[in-house]
Amino acid sequence: MSQAQTPKDTMAVIGCGVIGSGWAARALAAGMTVQAWDPNPEAVTILQNQIDTAWPALSRRGLAEGASRDNLHFTTDLDQALAGADLVQENAPERLSLKQSLLADIDARVPEQVLIGSSTSGIKPSELQAQCRHVPGRVIVAHPFNPVYLLPLVELVGGEHTEPAQLAAAGTHYERLGMRPLIVRREIEGHIADRLMEALWREALHLVNDGVATTEEVDAAIVYGAGLRWALMGTFLTFHLAGGEGGMRHMLEQFGPALKLPWTRLEAPELTPELVERVASGSEFQAGGRSVAELEARRDRFLGELLEVVERYWPEQEGLGGRI
Amino acid sequence: MSQAQTPKDTMAVIGCGVIGSGWAARALAAGMTVQAWDPNPEAVTILQNQIDTAWPALSRRGLAEGASRDNLHFTTDLDQALAGADLVQENAPERLSLKQSLLADIDARVPEQVLIGSSTSGIKPSELQAQCRHVPGRVIVAHPFNPVYLLPLVELVGGEHTEPAQLAAAGTHYERLGMRPLIVRREIEGHIADRLMEALWREALHLVNDGVATTEEVDAAIVYGAGLRWALMGTFLTFHLAGGEGGMRHMLEQFGPALKLPWTRLEAPELTPELVERVASGSEFQAGGRSVAELEARRDRFLGELLEVVERYWPEQEGLGGRI
Repeated sequence: MSQAQTPKDTMAVIGCGVIGSGWAARALAAGMTVQAWDPNPEAVTILQNQIDTAWPALSRRGLAEGASRDNLHFTTDLDQALAGADLVQENAPERLSLKQSLLADIDARVPEQVLIGSSTSGIKPSELQAQCRHVPGRVIVAHPFNPVYLLPLVELVGGEHTEPAQLAAAGTHYERLGMRPLIVRREIEGHIADRLMEALWREALHLVNDGVATTEEVDAAIVYGAGLRWALMGTFLTFHLAGGEGGMRHMLEQFGPALKLPWTRLEAPELTPELVERVASGSEFQAGGRSVAELEARRDRFLGELLEVVERYWPEQEGLGGRI
Repeated sequence: MSQAQTPKDTMAVIGCGVIGSGWAARALAAGMTVQAWDPNPEAVTILQNQIDTAWPALSRRGLAEGASRDNLHFTTDLDQALAGADLVQENAPERLSLKQSLLADIDARVPEQVLIGSSTSGIKPSELQAQCRHVPGRVIVAHPFNPVYLLPLVELVGGEHTEPAQLAAAGTHYERLGMRPLIVRREIEGHIADRLMEALWREALHLVNDGVATTEEVDAAIVYGAGLRWALMGTFLTFHLAGGEGGMRHMLEQFGPALKLPWTRLEAPELTPELVERVASGSEFQAGGRSVAELEARRDRFLGELLEVVERYWPEQEGLGGRI
């Protein structure tokens, strides 16, 4: 452990799959101590491997003073993981009953001022709070994006017991980790980003299912076109520019009627064995014989370089303070 | 005009709005002569302004030998625009009857070996060919992405009269312009990329309409998260990585059932005056007092830098030839 640590410097990472390990890597790089817990003692191997993958990218991005992989402590003892932590991040499998009992257990064990974030991609925070008897309002959704140690977005969603001030205060914990908290105004399944990705994903599956495109072609339609813009601008600002000097108002006048067209296939296709095969073998073809670890390392080299570029275009660089 | 020009070096740009002007800028930067036509003589101002916007970004990317803005010739005389062109690109407003008669007119006037591409974002090529009496098969969809002079994707779609070989040969015209042609296997309204963007857009409108997020928050959910990946990987390869070493197959087993959940709102919301106001004023807020021209220049600076990064990760750099 490094010197001058305050309770703010310890994060408990509960569940050490890809997402939990990503949180651990991010926190270590930010100079924090990580107390990682998993009921399976072999999870320490996944954790170490994921940090092996993450560390070069994090080092290129720049480590905080005092950052060290030696500040990682793995345990299968929940109390040991929670001791002294001021931020607890839960990353259990996406099953409601499992998360509910685990979070109730954590809520009963940690002091009331400790924030408990869940990495759930789809479950609403009120459901996560349902079995908590101690301070349910501090159990919130804190949904990151893979790779957690590089992508800055974290969606923060409060449940029925959460006060707005509690949620705002939660933001500082994640800013400490170098992230950009997005406070979601209303809880819905899938929060915001996964709703968008799900819509894209359903349509992509239809295109493949209908024989319009292979997975590679669908992906090419993203990465050589709109995807190059999406690192800088979302769908609204993009369409604002598409409207010319009249901006979004003109765009809505011009293209609004197209929303009435039955373009998109609105329900997901049946995942038949044939579709599974087509999607899986298409993706494997795209991988081109490279392992997932190789693809991850490649992705991380890219994202590090991309971030160096795109960060210079974020609002604060242009004097637009107070924005996400 | 510069020396040693062959017929391959002349592009007729038909219709000089944002998209037509983008084609003109791209062709000029590639060292070609551009014969631009618009029925409105004032369109030359839009054309010049758009090229003013594009040229610094194109210059930073590197101009082809002999590239010059002096190779641009604007006319309101269709025959003059078409004379000697070996590639005609139609960019008229998105109205079927207008495009059909314009394309029939062009088809009647140019030699049979000349390719005629339409920039339509939604109309099927068989509909575009319907009134062509000369060589309807060479009238194809060649759908670019804004800004046309920087984004490399062009979707090529043949109609019922188009031979596969004709479509493949068309690709070389667009490669000459530094683009990456994506040949679409079957004609559908919206081709591929706009189907995906439309699905995202519908869901984004629902999130705003339901009060879950502002336009700024929806955009933030893209640009600080998934959007950083989409410049490199599409939805399939992204999910392949999300599956861990088991890749897409594991991912489909694990998350396939989520497709049955009623997450996404499947039909577009009514564009009420309230929703139009919310979407438009949200986008204007995001613009932060900057004009669309300023936002375009900023976007272009960014995309130039981004492309320098991402191009080094494209398949050919990794010995994966023959891919999009």
